[in-house]
Amino acid sequence: MKFKIVHTFERMRVGEVTTIHGSFKTPVFIPVATLGAMRGLDNRDLKDMGVEVILANTYHLHIRPGDQLIKELGGLHKFMNFKGVIVTDSGGFQAFSLGYGLEHGVGKIANNIFLEGIKNCSYKGEKLAFVSDNGIKFKDPKSGIVVELTPKKSMEIQSNLGSDIIFALDECTSPLSDKEYTAKALERTHRWAEECLQYYDKKQALFGIVQGGEYRDLREKSAKFMAERDFAGYGIGGSLGKSKQDMLNIIDWVTPILPEEKPRHLLGIGAVEDLFNCVERGIDMFDCVAPARWARRGHLYISPAEGGNPKNKFRIHIRNSAFRRDPKPIDRDCDCLVCQNYSRAYLRHLFVSNELLYFRLATYHNVYFILNLMKKIRESIKDCSFYELKKEWLGYV
Amino acid sequence: MKFKIVHTFERMRVGEVTTIHGSFKTPVFIPVATLGAMRGLDNRDLKDMGVEVILANTYHLHIRPGDQLIKELGGLHKFMNFKGVIVTDSGGFQAFSLGYGLEHGVGKIANNIFLEGIKNCSYKGEKLAFVSDNGIKFKDPKSGIVVELTPKKSMEIQSNLGSDIIFALDECTSPLSDKEYTAKALERTHRWAEECLQYYDKKQALFGIVQGGEYRDLREKSAKFMAERDFAGYGIGGSLGKSKQDMLNIIDWVTPILPEEKPRHLLGIGAVEDLFNCVERGIDMFDCVAPARWARRGHLYISPAEGGNPKNKFRIHIRNSAFRRDPKPIDRDCDCLVCQNYSRAYLRHLFVSNELLYFRLATYHNVYFILNLMKKIRESIKDCSFYELKKEWLGYV
Repeated sequence: MKFKIVHTFERMRVGEVTTIHGSFKTPVFIPVATLGAMRGLDNRDLKDMGVEVILANTYHLHIRPGDQLIKELGGLHKFMNFKGVIVTDSGGFQAFSLGYGLEHGVGKIANNIFLEGIKNCSYKGEKLAFVSDNGIKFKDPKSGIVVELTPKKSMEIQSNLGSDIIFALDECTSPLSDKEYTAKALERTHRWAEECLQYYDKKQALFGIVQGGEYRDLREKSAKFMAERDFAGYGIGGSLGKSKQDMLNIIDWVTPILPEEKPRHLLGIGAVEDLFNCVERGIDMFDCVAPARWARRGHLYISPAEGGNPKNKFRIHIRNSAFRRDPKPIDRDCDCLVCQNYSRAYLRHLFVSNELLYFRLATYHNVYFILNLMKKIRESIKDCSFYELKKEWLGYV
Repeated sequence: MKFKIVHTFERMRVGEVTTIHGSFKTPVFIPVATLGAMRGLDNRDLKDMGVEVILANTYHLHIRPGDQLIKELGGLHKFMNFKGVIVTDSGGFQAFSLGYGLEHGVGKIANNIFLEGIKNCSYKGEKLAFVSDNGIKFKDPKSGIVVELTPKKSMEIQSNLGSDIIFALDECTSPLSDKEYTAKALERTHRWAEECLQYYDKKQALFGIVQGGEYRDLREKSAKFMAERDFAGYGIGGSLGKSKQDMLNIIDWVTPILPEEKPRHLLGIGAVEDLFNCVERGIDMFDCVAPARWARRGHLYISPAEGGNPKNKFRIHIRNSAFRRDPKPIDRDCDCLVCQNYSRAYLRHLFVSNELLYFRLATYHNVYFILNLMKKIRESIKDCSFYELKKEWLGYV
């Protein structure tokens, strides 16, 4: 993997990551294809939308259909027939989402991502992931099967998947974890990172993950630890504090320590306001299920031209009866397949009727919208108009 | 609307129907877009698949989003942005599916089409459609609202929708209706047909529907009645008896009576074996939800090259563990987007994982497969090789 920075503006960077399966421009938003599929979008859609890179989930693919099977069938690129770059996470996030995330009942994870996926199972609220010094034990809520993820195992699975960019196994802590626990988890994450460096498939590009919760000394310690080791890039993961400002502080602590010449991936973040503020602080890569999840629930992205702002989170809710007879597209400034072809009135009808086509079109628009925004952000860094663009979108600089 | 027959071979015909919104070749299979959407397929997909004509449902669109709203927004073509021919049914079929179909618990209608659509409602098994001489009263299971469909009203709704080909309101009887009831219903259907002729929007092409259940004299009477009136074409609807042979007998009784120069639409039929046997008897148009419904449930069409035959109904079930590591496309003879891009192993993974993309791809393949079969059938009529094709597919002539 190569990372070439072609433009900088203050702490912001425009670059290009190149792998054997293709390249992508940074700052980039990476849509999530958990099980090797992006809602109703096929590979032709991804191509048309300009998706150069996707992120798939190691833990989920290990369970279903199995990384061994994917390897036999020629790897994940071939299995899902995606001609672009594939990133896989390490499974460490699920240590949180299926572990303390559930036990602490921490908002979006416990309620949304996980429960939606297992609504047919007999989940009753207990933790389904257990962390020890050796690794993470998962109890699959559907089959009851226990799966153990060690650093070595995570590297093996990701090698079987054949993704281009892989992540070291980490323990993703909860915002409710105290400093003592977070420090202990960080030690583990660091030991695991060294094990991953030892065992990873050298044909892949390994990213280390900076952890440490909302604690400045832990974050700085982690950033130093990772920066001193030969990773292809760096993730910033785990609990990003309790507020937007906490998140920005964490980035401010961490990025100056990380090597300039390596890409920095802020894991799991993707709201419009965050994209601006984090790119501004030197973040190169983002991934998030948000565009697809909001789409599913009826929230469609709109630009400032349609009244999008930080308060409405740049979204309309298509169920709103105001759209019942609205012949306009979702966003007049958007040149996606959906906005070029369909009215809000039609989309509202599909949403209210629970038509399958709604989910496809809504996901298409929302993902396209964010990709297009990232393109504008890249251009604004190149011509030093980032703050004008930020002002236009967020209303502040 | 114009219908031009360009080739004939025995009782079979190849022709073209032309309307102001485009034309389609016959014999044709018309996919069903009940609420103005075809599962996960958008208008670009329909174009790529070569869909020249679709059928939407008058009753369902009247309820949701309302034909008045669709009219305000420029009609159904504009609302769903479909650049092709739109056929709408009359609502008469729902007199059966929501009426005696439910009361008699008649298989596929009561169990599948209807209940799937209202799984969130409080339906308890009673009839939801009531036929009188004036028309059909429907009780919407979701809202409890009572909707009355008279011949005049059905014409008004279809005029508001702005479809190209419309159907006269009929009473579709149950296979469990006795002869006395069927005869009474037939009288009503005939009276209603005359009312529809009086009230229909003359910019649209009105088809009359031949009813009469499984009773030869009633069917012949109905065919004569309809043939004597100035319809643009003719539907053959209602109960087509209790066996495949009953259905073929009904077609044999009816088609010789109907005018040669008008298209004949066999309503609601679409199985592979039926398409061959009914085209052979002079049917020009078919519509059926089957390809999409089977797709949804995991049944994917295969040609004789993949072992498709009347016994397996030309379908595999993708959940079969034999496909777990099968790198082949669904059908090697199929040149659809799905077969050109994805393996059975991937589709099985999507199906088992209940991924949205499965439904899109499966529907795409199944609909394309049937459209492609119809193309082959048309070509076989043109070059008089129909019986060779039929032998190859059905194993008999």
